[in-house]
Amino acid sequence: MNRINKLFNIQYPIIQGGMIWCSGWKLASAVSNAGGLGLIGTGSMYPEVAEEHIKKCKAATNKPFGVNIPLLYPQTDEIVSIVLKEGVKIVFTSAGNPAKYTSLLKENGVTVVHVVANKKFALKAVEAGVDAIVAEGFEAGGHNGIEETTTLVLIPMIKKITETPLIAAGGIASGQAIYAAMALGADGVQIGSRFAASVESSAHPNFLNAIVEAGDGDTLLALKQVVPVRLIKNEFLQQVQQLEKSGATKEELIKLLDRGRAKKGMFEGDTSVGELEIGQVSSMIDSIEPVEKIMKKLVAEFNETSNNLSGLKL
Amino acid sequence: MNRINKLFNIQYPIIQGGMIWCSGWKLASAVSNAGGLGLIGTGSMYPEVAEEHIKKCKAATNKPFGVNIPLLYPQTDEIVSIVLKEGVKIVFTSAGNPAKYTSLLKENGVTVVHVVANKKFALKAVEAGVDAIVAEGFEAGGHNGIEETTTLVLIPMIKKITETPLIAAGGIASGQAIYAAMALGADGVQIGSRFAASVESSAHPNFLNAIVEAGDGDTLLALKQVVPVRLIKNEFLQQVQQLEKSGATKEELIKLLDRGRAKKGMFEGDTSVGELEIGQVSSMIDSIEPVEKIMKKLVAEFNETSNNLSGLKL
Repeated sequence: MNRINKLFNIQYPIIQGGMIWCSGWKLASAVSNAGGLGLIGTGSMYPEVAEEHIKKCKAATNKPFGVNIPLLYPQTDEIVSIVLKEGVKIVFTSAGNPAKYTSLLKENGVTVVHVVANKKFALKAVEAGVDAIVAEGFEAGGHNGIEETTTLVLIPMIKKITETPLIAAGGIASGQAIYAAMALGADGVQIGSRFAASVESSAHPNFLNAIVEAGDGDTLLALKQVVPVRLIKNEFLQQVQQLEKSGATKEELIKLLDRGRAKKGMFEGDTSVGELEIGQVSSMIDSIEPVEKIMKKLVAEFNETSNNLSGLKL
Repeated sequence: MNRINKLFNIQYPIIQGGMIWCSGWKLASAVSNAGGLGLIGTGSMYPEVAEEHIKKCKAATNKPFGVNIPLLYPQTDEIVSIVLKEGVKIVFTSAGNPAKYTSLLKENGVTVVHVVANKKFALKAVEAGVDAIVAEGFEAGGHNGIEETTTLVLIPMIKKITETPLIAAGGIASGQAIYAAMALGADGVQIGSRFAASVESSAHPNFLNAIVEAGDGDTLLALKQVVPVRLIKNEFLQQVQQLEKSGATKEELIKLLDRGRAKKGMFEGDTSVGELEIGQVSSMIDSIEPVEKIMKKLVAEFNETSNNLSGLKL
């Protein structure tokens, strides 16, 4: 039992990233039932939808689960109120200032984790009093840092500046990678892409197939002027790049995005002109699997790696 | 003794990357004498200079050492001839087509390793018959891939497609990271930045200080249109970015580079308008150390990590 298992009272220190359009109650409850920590991704949900997912998740599992709240949307206050009202005990915040909600959440008995992509925000999160930090590298699919620091460099960097429990994210879709993250000093991992491509994912099958088909070099960290996100290369990304090349302002880029591009791509399945957020490690994902099978494989790979490296000395 | 130790007949599976302006005979022989594999970086050497460094390296160590030859310069034929004449037994080729020299080198009893940053070139290297592959991630300082695949994602990807001995590079400057690379399937590692910032490095002290001072987000993968290299952010990089923003052609960018920018920065110590190639992990390097001390620390950290993780199971 390590610090992350204890903090969340879970069997495996494996957290499923709260992803827009992928991680509703079905995915979150499946991950929690399989011994990890499932997170409902509220980034793509209206408050009433988030409430419904929380209620359904409570009905679907008696294991701990949590909610991810990106702090960049206007309805964050409402989402936080619902989380408190529904008695959700674990909240991961991301894409914003951790100082804003951490105290309120903790006063209400909520375990709070903040997602960071650089040293500066890691220190802010520690100062805000979070219970753990997710350090997410350049490989990751979600909102990313302008520093472009990769998981391999980021984890030891954050480990060096704080004793706060540390969860590694970005590029992790195998037990080998979980083991590597722990060698670097992480207490646990957050996995996005591998769970996005699961049977329980709420994303459109076309998007799931695009994840499976993505190979080496098929994603790019895009929209660096707005909010850096990693996308599968498609017509939409070409539109973004053309706009950027023509010297478009941040506002013009936001306008292009605001046409519900993420929903169109990930939920409605338009893989051509929709926005397809996914991690670089999608290049290593070649099947859509049930969560239970994914979790068993991760654990088996981890234990096999541990056996193989046992006693290894230089 | 693993496959990399055996292949090169070295004590530790730790290779010092052959870096321009940093790794002459002093650094290479120091690394070899400390139990790793030192490489003379010929990328910044005229053939006669390379010859001198090889002769001096032979005099300075009776341990195996090698030479790195980037395949993008006009004098490659001459360098290869010198390598054969001097009886160098290990050659790392990079930044070019591995099919060109591998056969010739191997016919002359040379162990050949090729550096790749993606799946496509890994397969080309295997086809060319190399003895090992260096898979170098987006974090690395040297010539990089347009795919921007990070070490964490790249190593398992290459491991999956070939049984050729695999050396991980990019983002590795600690024993923890070496251990992580092995968990991902690497047989050994190539380390650049950590050895660049050594007492035996031939780079200018101003450049070494710039490495020590570099923090999170202080490097950027630049010059993607020409040859992607990771640089410390300075006035030169701003010039490059301004040119790129103004829609400069590849030729105009090469013209800016051709003014001996790398030499100016790394060898002559003009850290303002010179080109400063270094890995992202420079953010974790905070002192200039003798090679022997660096090597001992890497080994100690590796063994400590191995002890800490011993028997760890999920």
